[in-house]
Amino acid sequence: MPEGDVRVDIAKLHDLGVRALVAAGAREEHARWTADVLLASDLRGVESHGFAHLADFYVARLRNGTLKADPDIRVVQETASAATIDADGGLGFAGGHVGMLAAVDKARSSGVGMAAVRNSGHYGPGFYYAMLALAHDMVGLSLTTGGNIIVPPGGKKRTYGANVIAFAAQTREAPFVLDMSTSVVAGGKFEIARRRGQSVPAGWGLGPEGEPITDPNLYFQGGAILPLGSTPEMGAYKGFGLALMVDVLCGLLSEGGASVELRSGQANHFFAALRIDAFGTKEAFLDRMEEMKRRLRAAPRQEGAPPLSIPGEPEAALEAENRRLGVPLHPTVIEALRGMAAELGIEFGL
Amino acid sequence: MPEGDVRVDIAKLHDLGVRALVAAGAREEHARWTADVLLASDLRGVESHGFAHLADFYVARLRNGTLKADPDIRVVQETASAATIDADGGLGFAGGHVGMLAAVDKARSSGVGMAAVRNSGHYGPGFYYAMLALAHDMVGLSLTTGGNIIVPPGGKKRTYGANVIAFAAQTREAPFVLDMSTSVVAGGKFEIARRRGQSVPAGWGLGPEGEPITDPNLYFQGGAILPLGSTPEMGAYKGFGLALMVDVLCGLLSEGGASVELRSGQANHFFAALRIDAFGTKEAFLDRMEEMKRRLRAAPRQEGAPPLSIPGEPEAALEAENRRLGVPLHPTVIEALRGMAAELGIEFGL
Repeated sequence: MPEGDVRVDIAKLHDLGVRALVAAGAREEHARWTADVLLASDLRGVESHGFAHLADFYVARLRNGTLKADPDIRVVQETASAATIDADGGLGFAGGHVGMLAAVDKARSSGVGMAAVRNSGHYGPGFYYAMLALAHDMVGLSLTTGGNIIVPPGGKKRTYGANVIAFAAQTREAPFVLDMSTSVVAGGKFEIARRRGQSVPAGWGLGPEGEPITDPNLYFQGGAILPLGSTPEMGAYKGFGLALMVDVLCGLLSEGGASVELRSGQANHFFAALRIDAFGTKEAFLDRMEEMKRRLRAAPRQEGAPPLSIPGEPEAALEAENRRLGVPLHPTVIEALRGMAAELGIEFGL
Repeated sequence: MPEGDVRVDIAKLHDLGVRALVAAGAREEHARWTADVLLASDLRGVESHGFAHLADFYVARLRNGTLKADPDIRVVQETASAATIDADGGLGFAGGHVGMLAAVDKARSSGVGMAAVRNSGHYGPGFYYAMLALAHDMVGLSLTTGGNIIVPPGGKKRTYGANVIAFAAQTREAPFVLDMSTSVVAGGKFEIARRRGQSVPAGWGLGPEGEPITDPNLYFQGGAILPLGSTPEMGAYKGFGLALMVDVLCGLLSEGGASVELRSGQANHFFAALRIDAFGTKEAFLDRMEEMKRRLRAAPRQEGAPPLSIPGEPEAALEAENRRLGVPLHPTVIEALRGMAAELGIEFGL
């Protein structure tokens, strides 16, 4: 648990989230979906996408009308295995749920399903939507555009989106869960360094004039984050290319536009669900998964290196601990939530 | 054109490829598919996947029985939008074509289609299969396992596959084509450095004892290539995670096994095709694509940086030039092809 954090009750925190969003005008179902995602974020250690921003992002934007409180989310086009959904400028968590559930629904009837979602907003961490497929014995993929804080290879300024690839698959242990921005790091890593007064490694980002930086403060003065790979020599065109692939699937198919066109807060998403039993048997899939992990873990390690992590394993261990002990929140987050409750005129209850 | 290369006639080279593969026992259709891919590789500058290895990889392996000359490629399971194909140990180019065409076929009827292919072999460059979708007004995705030359984060030895993600989408100019290994670089970059007597950048790979290297020769003495990201601090867990995602889709769904289980020459693939008009209109898709490229190109560049490349653009320019002037081949490749023709007792004809 991060130093200074305080544990709060899971059910009470979730309930506060739902009540606050409803008080801010959101529909009950959308409020529940949002609280589900924020809670999952905090439980799995993704603080930047958890309750830390409930007040200033979602509640504030619902109240000032930047986010539509009662959006008309509708399927604008569909086939047996594909759908395009217009999220009508509401909470991204609603667009995300409707999109992933549409993909799951299509997969149930035809084997695999995909959904592209436009006119949506920030939907929190991608892993949540990919993991919705797991309970249906499906593999899940969730892509989203992110804020325009990434600089293309050879560029000077933040230009295109911190686009994210998330992917989830069952195992006999913790689910395999990949959730990665297509940049060297997500913006949250600069926030953490700034808060701790630490420098960041060379190659993470640029300052406001396009200069290489190690001072995280310069990033917040109009700097940019580099694509995964960092330099062309080390693969920056791969990170850049992956981000554009995400843009094609999220924004071009749906006609919502690529990240480079979007305003702050706008987002497009793309979801896919694949029924394991459309391709083979669940048992064989799980057998192969365990064999893959076993062989990877058995491979020789560098002196002093920690054991190999399979993506999703550290987060699952953290979630188990947090479910037992309560959600760790920073005292400033708790105070922000208390202020939010007072402003909305609802009971705090934490 | 690489220094010392000689230009050869496109039609004659393709014809030699088909005749050689047929003489080595391959079925006419498989021979044609293979020659198509090898030619496209050389035309687009991917020498390592072109005619350079026709003799020693494909013809030799057909003749010594490592590759089955007359495989029984069959659909082992399918639904309206998904298929699993067993390639029966034949040429990967055949498994690749059958797989991608199955995905296209499913997409035609239900909007999107996917196919997982097991028991296949090296299928050349991934871009070729992704690009097969373009003529059908579809977006294409082609994934494959690669040889086990990659070391996981914190590891010492080559362990899992140089797994590849390829993706293609139409534009009004050159197609958008991403084709990337999930490692810092593909093995071919070490071959080029060795041939030229150059060192490689720190962070590309490890030597036989797991030590960081800049001498490419040490990679060939049992070294390994690092995942995209290179170090954990710079995102190596992202490259590693993407590679495992490819393994799940190629090898776990199909039950062919993850790359870490495969022997040299074995491969599993995964294909997806998405009809643009299942999601929206082709015109709107192309409009958005041009707008994305325009804005990315217009973003400020570093002093002295070359203009921003959109993935697929440099390769399309090279292909246009090579189609006009002939395929550039190194004289040693031409001599290898001449020797192969003599050994097979077929006319050389170049």
